[in-house]
Amino acid sequence: MTTAQCFAGRFIHTPAPDQLQVLEQALVSVDSAGVIVSILTPQQDGYSQSVAAAREAGTLTRAEGECFFIPGLVDLHIHAPQFPQLGKALHLPLEDWLQRCTFPLEARYSDVEFAVSVYSSLIDTLLANGTTSAVYFSTIHREATAVLAELCLQKHQRAWVGRVAMDDQGQCPDYYRDASTEQGLLDSEQSITDIRNLPGNTAARVQAILTPRFIPSCTDAMLQGLGELARRYDCPVQTHCSESDWEHQYVLDRFGVSDTEALDQFGLLTRQTVLAHSNFIGSSDMSVIKQRGSGIAHCPMSNAYFAGAVFPLRKALTMGLNVGLGTDISGGPSASQFDSCRCAIAAGRMLESGVDASVSADQRGIADSRIDYIEAFYLATAGGGDVLNSPIGKFETGYHFDAVMIDPAADNSNLQFFEQLDSTEDLFQKTLYAATRSNIVGVWVDGAK
Amino acid sequence: MTTAQCFAGRFIHTPAPDQLQVLEQALVSVDSAGVIVSILTPQQDGYSQSVAAAREAGTLTRAEGECFFIPGLVDLHIHAPQFPQLGKALHLPLEDWLQRCTFPLEARYSDVEFAVSVYSSLIDTLLANGTTSAVYFSTIHREATAVLAELCLQKHQRAWVGRVAMDDQGQCPDYYRDASTEQGLLDSEQSITDIRNLPGNTAARVQAILTPRFIPSCTDAMLQGLGELARRYDCPVQTHCSESDWEHQYVLDRFGVSDTEALDQFGLLTRQTVLAHSNFIGSSDMSVIKQRGSGIAHCPMSNAYFAGAVFPLRKALTMGLNVGLGTDISGGPSASQFDSCRCAIAAGRMLESGVDASVSADQRGIADSRIDYIEAFYLATAGGGDVLNSPIGKFETGYHFDAVMIDPAADNSNLQFFEQLDSTEDLFQKTLYAATRSNIVGVWVDGAK
Repeated sequence: MTTAQCFAGRFIHTPAPDQLQVLEQALVSVDSAGVIVSILTPQQDGYSQSVAAAREAGTLTRAEGECFFIPGLVDLHIHAPQFPQLGKALHLPLEDWLQRCTFPLEARYSDVEFAVSVYSSLIDTLLANGTTSAVYFSTIHREATAVLAELCLQKHQRAWVGRVAMDDQGQCPDYYRDASTEQGLLDSEQSITDIRNLPGNTAARVQAILTPRFIPSCTDAMLQGLGELARRYDCPVQTHCSESDWEHQYVLDRFGVSDTEALDQFGLLTRQTVLAHSNFIGSSDMSVIKQRGSGIAHCPMSNAYFAGAVFPLRKALTMGLNVGLGTDISGGPSASQFDSCRCAIAAGRMLESGVDASVSADQRGIADSRIDYIEAFYLATAGGGDVLNSPIGKFETGYHFDAVMIDPAADNSNLQFFEQLDSTEDLFQKTLYAATRSNIVGVWVDGAK
Repeated sequence: MTTAQCFAGRFIHTPAPDQLQVLEQALVSVDSAGVIVSILTPQQDGYSQSVAAAREAGTLTRAEGECFFIPGLVDLHIHAPQFPQLGKALHLPLEDWLQRCTFPLEARYSDVEFAVSVYSSLIDTLLANGTTSAVYFSTIHREATAVLAELCLQKHQRAWVGRVAMDDQGQCPDYYRDASTEQGLLDSEQSITDIRNLPGNTAARVQAILTPRFIPSCTDAMLQGLGELARRYDCPVQTHCSESDWEHQYVLDRFGVSDTEALDQFGLLTRQTVLAHSNFIGSSDMSVIKQRGSGIAHCPMSNAYFAGAVFPLRKALTMGLNVGLGTDISGGPSASQFDSCRCAIAAGRMLESGVDASVSADQRGIADSRIDYIEAFYLATAGGGDVLNSPIGKFETGYHFDAVMIDPAADNSNLQFFEQLDSTEDLFQKTLYAATRSNIVGVWVDGAK
């Protein structure tokens, strides 16, 4: 394909977990499908001519002044219906949070108008925060799920949208549960075709994803059926895995095997599976996950509230697992993947040092658990791409041009750049720690703003 | 004194750690010194007349629309000279952070012009984030310390400003240390008079505070001398206390008693003492601190990076200690006390649950360690006032009118209020979790904007 658009200026990204790359005065050319076709730096042949040609054609977007481009953020775990609850009810015990707040709220999405209004606001908020790719749990409602997918398409956000399957009568409330296993499976199947057939969804920018809420809320027949749908439709899967002591133990009690192993037995662990949390997985679980090529959505913000432990991130990375980050709206309090990065770093430090001052230092934590800002940013961008098996999260030929323009000098910004004291790497670290949506002055998905 | 100004609208504050109070359509009258003289609600006699009179006199400020007032935030622990380093170098080991970054940066403040430029930017940033009261470490430099105090006075921020004393030749670098114990004590003493005699500082809005960096960087003679100055000048004191395993153990090795006890022996624990961190204090330390009426600046953000444990906040609160919050710029990555609140809540949850998933749940954490959003906000406002022994942080007669106006619907805000679903308490919790400086549309100290 031919070049449709060009972007020029400073680009900063993490092509590998331990590598921060700064491309100064680069020219990134994007084809009409939104895919990067070339990246030129001033030293390379044809650079000046290409810049001049793009300027002449009126297809050049420049990062002016102090502005620079970063890859769009990938949020692997969002409960879309819980958006109205973001930043509230976090002081409640989990049982109250779920039964008194969350389930009644999710049940409201039988009302399609309500869904349109909340989901519009959610997608706008996420895009304004630089989240160009979003992986959504919706609710049990097929119609509201289609609404979410359609709004993502309209608003030009890359998205994975999943109707939530939950049919277990013992675990799910009467007012919010699939009418039957059969009906739930039918709704999940039809939701796949609803989304795949959305008018305008030709490039599959919005994908269906099978979504058993988690093992405790599903019957064996439901899990079996969803595994078959995953295979038959070559459809991605998402679910919660070993989030808390309770969930981890529940699955052990029911199946005699771990959450990971049970999901695998139902055919739900594939190269296209996103496992939220996974805080309590052990080494053998990690081996299974690695073998299947599945990925993990690490959600450090909500883990502080509802998990009871910190995800052993370093161990997972060392084992070579695909890992990205999720906000877990509304189990965590923020819609920003920058906040996920900050919290992932802090949680890693706290896991490394331990937290209880009354325990001696050498017994308190787990050595080498920390990650740095470069790894955190990798997780929030290219790491999410690894999990989703999608060419997103880096500035590389063949990758989608999903990008965010950062203005460090924006109004209402806490980002302070000291020219005499700060390197470009410092500026980037400061951005990771201080950027808010005020600093996000442009967002592109597949090259379109 | 007579009323000089009035403020009308919704006021939300925490008069006690477990109490969130919403005053709807209240009228707060402030005298010419900036002190609250009355608070009227519509049910009370004279309300309508007072509103009308203020409107007529042109002295009425209203929180319009969705806007509301909260007390100004109190930041108990800020290293002013480290502001250029905020949000960078946090991936480095502590020793590198200190020797390669922090000390060389602090040494630069022998240059007064540099101090003026950085400190102006810092105070502007803090005020824009709603921090109306700030407790500052400056550097060893008397002149730059006076500059900081003068700028606080000019920019109308309530402040405690301390020249840092550090004279131990074994612990402090040659290029950044008091020339001698005598010179250091003289500089600290003169810094008190510098600040107290600042033109325009008649209401003591900016106060001097004696600031031994921490015990390891001071000789016995310095600590002794500072204790005497504290008594002679009735001057507040701040220092670090038992921040890390290393510091805690260092003092035990040097004096055979804990950091707290050693500070007490030097006369440095008074009703006007702010102890930063104090992560490793035990029950007997807490008793001493309580007896002296000293207070603690809990800095959860920097603790995640440099402390090695979580401050036992719940225990300190149960014992009735005065506790507030600090950003610890630049040991923590943010200038916002809202971020301190968020991190204090998350750290409390992580201390309660523990962090290591391989340990059984009942052994992993310390029961009842959590705090909720109301307690966190109390710490960031009235709790700071308790520590400083100052009438700030609440809307009460006799308190300074230090306030922040929040606009939940500001541009670039992540705060989403759903009228059908959210109570005022929910709105407040959402504000605590989502507010950035974009939402801060007005800041008053002593009634002046």
